[in-house]
Amino acid sequence: MKNIALIAAALCTLPLHAEAPSTAMAITEGLTTEVGPRLAGTEAEARARDWAVKKLTALGFANARIEPFTIPGWVRGEERAEITAPFPQKLILTALGHSGATPASGLSLEVVTFPTYAAFKAAPDAAIKGKIVYVGHRMNRTQDGSSYGSFGQVRRDGPSLAAQRGAAAFLIRSIGTDDHRLPHTGVTSWAKDVKPIPAAALSNPDADTLERVASRGSTMRMNLLLTPRFTGPQPSGNVIAELPGRDPGAGLVLVACHLDSLDLGTGAIDDATGCGIITDAALRVAKSGQQRRTIRVLWAGAEEVGVFGGDAYFQAHKAEPHALAAESDFGAGRIWQVKFRLPDGAAALKARVAEALAAQGIGAGAGLAHGGADVGQMVGAGAPSIDLSQDGSRYFDLHHTGDDSFDKVDPADIEQNVAAWTAMLDLVSNAPEQLEGTAR
Amino acid sequence: MKNIALIAAALCTLPLHAEAPSTAMAITEGLTTEVGPRLAGTEAEARARDWAVKKLTALGFANARIEPFTIPGWVRGEERAEITAPFPQKLILTALGHSGATPASGLSLEVVTFPTYAAFKAAPDAAIKGKIVYVGHRMNRTQDGSSYGSFGQVRRDGPSLAAQRGAAAFLIRSIGTDDHRLPHTGVTSWAKDVKPIPAAALSNPDADTLERVASRGSTMRMNLLLTPRFTGPQPSGNVIAELPGRDPGAGLVLVACHLDSLDLGTGAIDDATGCGIITDAALRVAKSGQQRRTIRVLWAGAEEVGVFGGDAYFQAHKAEPHALAAESDFGAGRIWQVKFRLPDGAAALKARVAEALAAQGIGAGAGLAHGGADVGQMVGAGAPSIDLSQDGSRYFDLHHTGDDSFDKVDPADIEQNVAAWTAMLDLVSNAPEQLEGTAR
Repeated sequence: MKNIALIAAALCTLPLHAEAPSTAMAITEGLTTEVGPRLAGTEAEARARDWAVKKLTALGFANARIEPFTIPGWVRGEERAEITAPFPQKLILTALGHSGATPASGLSLEVVTFPTYAAFKAAPDAAIKGKIVYVGHRMNRTQDGSSYGSFGQVRRDGPSLAAQRGAAAFLIRSIGTDDHRLPHTGVTSWAKDVKPIPAAALSNPDADTLERVASRGSTMRMNLLLTPRFTGPQPSGNVIAELPGRDPGAGLVLVACHLDSLDLGTGAIDDATGCGIITDAALRVAKSGQQRRTIRVLWAGAEEVGVFGGDAYFQAHKAEPHALAAESDFGAGRIWQVKFRLPDGAAALKARVAEALAAQGIGAGAGLAHGGADVGQMVGAGAPSIDLSQDGSRYFDLHHTGDDSFDKVDPADIEQNVAAWTAMLDLVSNAPEQLEGTAR
Repeated sequence: MKNIALIAAALCTLPLHAEAPSTAMAITEGLTTEVGPRLAGTEAEARARDWAVKKLTALGFANARIEPFTIPGWVRGEERAEITAPFPQKLILTALGHSGATPASGLSLEVVTFPTYAAFKAAPDAAIKGKIVYVGHRMNRTQDGSSYGSFGQVRRDGPSLAAQRGAAAFLIRSIGTDDHRLPHTGVTSWAKDVKPIPAAALSNPDADTLERVASRGSTMRMNLLLTPRFTGPQPSGNVIAELPGRDPGAGLVLVACHLDSLDLGTGAIDDATGCGIITDAALRVAKSGQQRRTIRVLWAGAEEVGVFGGDAYFQAHKAEPHALAAESDFGAGRIWQVKFRLPDGAAALKARVAEALAAQGIGAGAGLAHGGADVGQMVGAGAPSIDLSQDGSRYFDLHHTGDDSFDKVDPADIEQNVAAWTAMLDLVSNAPEQLEGTAR
């Protein structure tokens, strides 16, 4: 009966009138207002860690602490682009994370354009050597965000491939679904021994303009200036805290988000909301009566620049038994689906969670839960997991842009997330079944 | 019968399938692609004039020409702002047109905030002297755009008043209805003998952030850098062309738009669409059989920086009899209302125009037509006018921002505009009534 009452209580907290903000909203508002952008390895990320320890302690968590690690630093510099022929016009772009730099005086070169990543890969090296390469992959909306996997390749792998093939610089259409002149950044990866070249994303309207200019058929030339720089090893760290359970031998329930953000926005939906949601839900479970298992929150550092926090957590804590490893890191949309990865003996728990979520309109999906970036290694090593999938239809309007700001967060949507997480966490943290061990 | 047939033909051109773009869309696409931003007094505005003469000539207009004039030049420089206390965070803002500059090293000062322009005006001078003043007026959507008049005051008059009262700089919440981190610029006016101070608009999300920081109650400090500069007298000009009528004594039908744009966007909805709409409609009228009156198109220069083109037109052409002076300069939304300012003997024409537009779902509004900025002096001096009012509900999402780009233009909405203008222009340019002279 306790679980039913708790679920009902969670549902009844959906605000009908102006009320004090929920803990989830207060965390989101606080991080975006009192810290703002918090790029991994910067002084701002360090301020965010201090803010987080203070906040979690004030909320009643035990043992709130920083677990430090070191990452390779990189910071944005100036960024300017202008088509100089056939029609002079400035374009708005932004460097991809870990982009190389142009000379301080910029590059002035011919632009060669490809409609898709496949067309770029199929072109002969001679067509791109010494040129600024542009690839115009355009991504449509998906509820589950799955297009980011395929369309994101051009950002993650394209610059390295272009560098290996002799391109002078690599530009892409933003991996985004909006039509605002706010380009989408995100980290790119360089293959071993590849020297980084300048790599940047144009906003969708600017990509449209470049493609319309290209459609006229004349040779296009561009002045390009990008002056980001690698800053060497820099401090980062995870923030961890617990709500102790009654049974220390029953395994930890780990719920994660990431504390760092990219530098253009204030990291509201990526991922302050995630930290707000999991923390608020954990507190609601504990406040309804001490739960069986210890719930640990992980506010991971340096996720955006290579999941360094998730790796550090795994290295430090992989020997501890985990009954669950789950994460909220897909924005501020409502939860529409649940997926599971639970051990054999947990079929009854799975049914209880599915039923509780069905009562909130959330259906069970096919396939296994994957956790999230920061718990991915834990799940890969066998920790049980449950995915509460958020609606991503609008996520890629904002993701990795300047527009990721607090005003985009709908308190009613966040409350729906907290209610679902509360129901799930309550059932898992109090489950009598044995959960720690290898999940299927 | 000819008029009915023409209206029917215009309606039937609403595209159901992919078709060649209309002249209106081709002008909008061409100006935004082959010229782009065209700030008054710059080399880009000069390129736009050359583009316009070539385009109008190619479309079959007679006597396409440039009528030059000179304006005071101003160009944007660097613009950076950062709250330094109590919570360090960068903010996105943009200088208002004709803003003064900070020192090259920027300003580092206390910020004082006011929720409304009235609150700023009511505050004692001592509260603002030597400080960075922020006013957070927030504008809601209106279909007729009327809120821009009242809320725009803080942009037009606020900086001058703040300078007179001793403020070091003046910041406002953007006069805009969107929630993107793209601030809205627009020109401000300095009273006689007032030395310009730095004046800028924050994007709505950044204004929200500043207000949330202010709500914590601690003294706020900011580093502000703005380096725009006045560039002295610069060349601008109007582009004018005609479709000759059968009766040179019947007065001119003047239809206007403005060719210049602000510098942040590509001037798609402000006002390439206006030029496309009036030009396409004029051509459709002429192609259906030579009309009685000469139709003159005015693509005005330097509207955004002080309606210099409208003033130059009035000075040069006020002695010529005008049967109509109308303008399209309110974006790319559908026309929803018509207003009139016609001479006494034109009641029957007014009824015919109202009937033709009612057939397109456009109702007649109360009050008199005002023309538009570039024909305002002509209308003020007695030229008849008809306003075809566009729906402005979304106009101030884009107006004067970087987001004013071609992708925001819906071809079906533009076709609706052209159909309405075609119906109105056909009736006015062929009306047997005497129209030139003082309108009521």
